Amino acid sequence: MAEQKATNITWHEGSVTREERQKLLNQKGVTVWMTGLSAAGKSTIAVILEQMLLHKGKHAYRLDGDNIRHGLNKNLGFSAEDRSENIRRIGEVAKLFADAGSIAVTSFISPYKKDREAVRANNKPGEFVEIYIKISLEGAEKRDPKGLYKKARAALASGKGMGFTGIDDPYEAPESPELVIDTESLTPAQSAEQILAYLEKGGYLKA
Amino acid sequence: MAEQKATNITWHEGSVTREERQKLLNQKGVTVWMTGLSAAGKSTIAVILEQMLLHKGKHAYRLDGDNIRHGLNKNLGFSAEDRSENIRRIGEVAKLFADAGSIAVTSFISPYKKDREAVRANNKPGEFVEIYIKISLEGAEKRDPKGLYKKARAALASGKGMGFTGIDDPYEAPESPELVIDTESLTPAQSAEQILAYLEKGGYLKA
Repeated sequence: MAEQKATNITWHEGSVTREERQKLLNQKGVTVWMTGLSAAGKSTIAVILEQMLLHKGKHAYRLDGDNIRHGLNKNLGFSAEDRSENIRRIGEVAKLFADAGSIAVTSFISPYKKDREAVRANNKPGEFVEIYIKISLEGAEKRDPKGLYKKARAALASGKGMGFTGIDDPYEAPESPELVIDTESLTPAQSAEQILAYLEKGGYLKA
Repeated sequence: MAEQKATNITWHEGSVTREERQKLLNQKGVTVWMTGLSAAGKSTIAVILEQMLLHKGKHAYRLDGDNIRHGLNKNLGFSAEDRSENIRRIGEVAKLFADAGSIAVTSFISPYKKDREAVRANNKPGEFVEIYIKISLEGAEKRDPKGLYKKARAALASGKGMGFTGIDDPYEAPESPELVIDTESLTPAQSAEQILAYLEKGGYLKA
């Protein structure tokens, strides 16, 4: 394609780069991947983190069950293969948002190390930040805001089982996440602040 | 969750809204869906449109074969079912970008009306803009920058066929797209300018 004149600017074939988008937003694109048991507080922390980022004029976007399971991944079930594909697609979408210069915040249990490691391996170093939203199984069962653990225990007792993470399906805690948030000693706002501080220190909140 | 005090701000449970993200970016989120034959100029126009938007301080993100086929949709082939799923996923991702307040620009042939209509139906009115990047088959075959039409014609002549859009697979032109761009009478920069003018007039370039 030849160069094209439009008004007084010369447009060229090269695409707008990630760096240019980052400069526009004055931040660096990154995937902030939260992982942890159900009831650990991932979604609550993600929502508050998003508010804190907006308050600083930073662009973030949350990927969660609400906008993923009913949209992009609505044709996936809960077989081992589908769970893995679920995480793969979320990782790919988060990567696109990071490439767009945004801060993609994901809040999925994502229990299997191999799935999370595959997402990490698909990103450049520094563009994927894994955050372990930590809670003991006992602590999670005590909270159980949706009664899911109770249901899973009952299903297990009746001999059927639900394949529920922590009860009859494993949660594989990250071995070397970028950050561990202990939600049994921190409030959600304190947790979000720790993540914000990590991003600030890591230079993500400037271009 | 109880309200949490952090520094002097009160964080609340409600998520950051689309409107808040749009206000941050001073624009409205939208999917700009280009459709047209191979060699019509979709990618070239998308690249220039992206530059023009950036120049105006607007945030856009292009979804194209490069970042979709090698990532999110790398597990899809070219069967009728996979082509349809390809378009569905692209539509879902563009919708997420639009929800994030960004201007998602897609440049895929997307030959089937039913697939495009399904994407449109998945969006609210005004949040999906279909742009027909028009060229005659003769015009496209004359350009043929990658020699694909030549290859498709040869394959057809040899009795094998490639299922190539326009040659041995149908292109179903949109009946009522928001905009028709005649690329046989406009340069790529002029085409991008027309799309930009449409977005400006439609109020997409302010919150």
